[in-house]
Amino acid sequence: MVYREEFQVTSNAGVPTFHNVTGQTKNAVKNSGIRNGIVVVYSRHTTCCVIIEEDAFDMAITGLETLQQDFVEVFEKLIPTYRKEGMYQHPGPKALKFGAEHGEDAQACHNTDAHLRSSLVGRSETVVVIDGKMDLGEFGNIYFIDFDQTRARTRTVQIQVIGE
Amino acid sequence: MVYREEFQVTSNAGVPTFHNVTGQTKNAVKNSGIRNGIVVVYSRHTTCCVIIEEDAFDMAITGLETLQQDFVEVFEKLIPTYRKEGMYQHPGPKALKFGAEHGEDAQACHNTDAHLRSSLVGRSETVVVIDGKMDLGEFGNIYFIDFDQTRARTRTVQIQVIGE
Amino acid sequence: MVYREEFQVTSNAGVPTFHNVTGQTKNAVKNSGIRNGIVVVYSRHTTCCVIIEEDAFDMAITGLETLQQDFVEVFEKLIPTYRKEGMYQHPGPKALKFGAEHGEDAQACHNTDAHLRSSLVGRSETVVVIDGKMDLGEFGNIYFIDFDQTRARTRTVQIQVIGE
Repeated sequence: MVYREEFQVTSNAGVPTFHNVTGQTKNAVKNSGIRNGIVVVYSRHTTCCVIIEEDAFDMAITGLETLQQDFVEVFEKLIPTYRKEGMYQHPGPKALKFGAEHGEDAQACHNTDAHLRSSLVGRSETVVVIDGKMDLGEFGNIYFIDFDQTRARTRTVQIQVIGE
Repeated sequence: MVYREEFQVTSNAGVPTFHNVTGQTKNAVKNSGIRNGIVVVYSRHTTCCVIIEEDAFDMAITGLETLQQDFVEVFEKLIPTYRKEGMYQHPGPKALKFGAEHGEDAQACHNTDAHLRSSLVGRSETVVVIDGKMDLGEFGNIYFIDFDQTRARTRTVQIQVIGE
Repeated sequence: MVYREEFQVTSNAGVPTFHNVTGQTKNAVKNSGIRNGIVVVYSRHTTCCVIIEEDAFDMAITGLETLQQDFVEVFEKLIPTYRKEGMYQHPGPKALKFGAEHGEDAQACHNTDAHLRSSLVGRSETVVVIDGKMDLGEFGNIYFIDFDQTRARTRTVQIQVIGE
């Protein structure tokens, strides 16, 4: 048996956005009627990804939770935000031309860091479903991360439940 | 068809622990009777994760295999072990208060490195099942990694087999 | 319902190889007749992995696309190519002996970087299948990456479609 839901989230500009989609995923599992199997939470956007992490309680000055901010800092060290020309080879002239022809301004094309970060993390997470419930342990939450900081955007989160 | 097994492993303090769960996963696939599909090996703990890697034969002085120790060294560079105050923003005052109220000592709350490392790696690995067997190639092993070094702990490994 | 295809790709020496397997995966989903579910693209090789990323249009001088080259540079910083003795603990004497007994030259055993990089990325990606089609968004491509630079090799890509 396969059951699907999708919904939209709106990301901020200027900072990676962590969307807590645990509640929506729990509801989808419930709505599916599936008792045992898996649920896949998936991003079709190539600058977004999915992780499972604890709720950290405390907030950083950026508006992210402390553990989210620490996660961002790891990437700031490894794959820094695209701040000036020449940090990455992408986007090249053809990519910029393609962007311009499709109504993207040049600044929005310089989201290379988001492409690299999100592909390293992975586009989806899979959670086991047992007796009609996701097993996230005591503290697990599912976050859909939008690493693209160049502009505010609406994104689609896909939830696919498979089982019996 | 869906089949599930779970079992416990016990991690060490002072070092990330690599649990080789290949044998248990092979048995679960066999017990499932499923001939073709996938098997998901999953951690519900937010400081643990799953990888597929070679057996390295040789041991490092830490008790880890050389390839495991090399993996740990990568993280020591990128997401160093929490050794002194101020390395990470997490845990903040609310997280420490929550921990104290739930019987955790302050030192055990400073497992931020384990949270970040394991969420970057990912909570599960999926392996294809063909003719009743996992396809791990000639050398693949499945490791359940506990990155939390703050104390010895018992952990639950989930195995979910889906197919026909 | 479960449907499976596999095929071979040939990797280059001296550079990580990015195999675009989007076309083959689309065909496998079509051939499966499955309308809704998931497709798993999987590597059984422990120096290969799978990512979903944009086509970057522009080429770097290495023959990789710019975004692929940027991805490689991230790893060159974090997990540099094994260029001289002592960069990693693996391969140790037992691993070298095992390699020699199985016809591998010593140079080919020094693919530690490929083991570490690919296990960090993950052996598979899962894509949702909706109304008979993968949902890769407008720009997503599936790349099977061979991080082993020590020699040209033939590799097997596994595609497993599950659903109804």
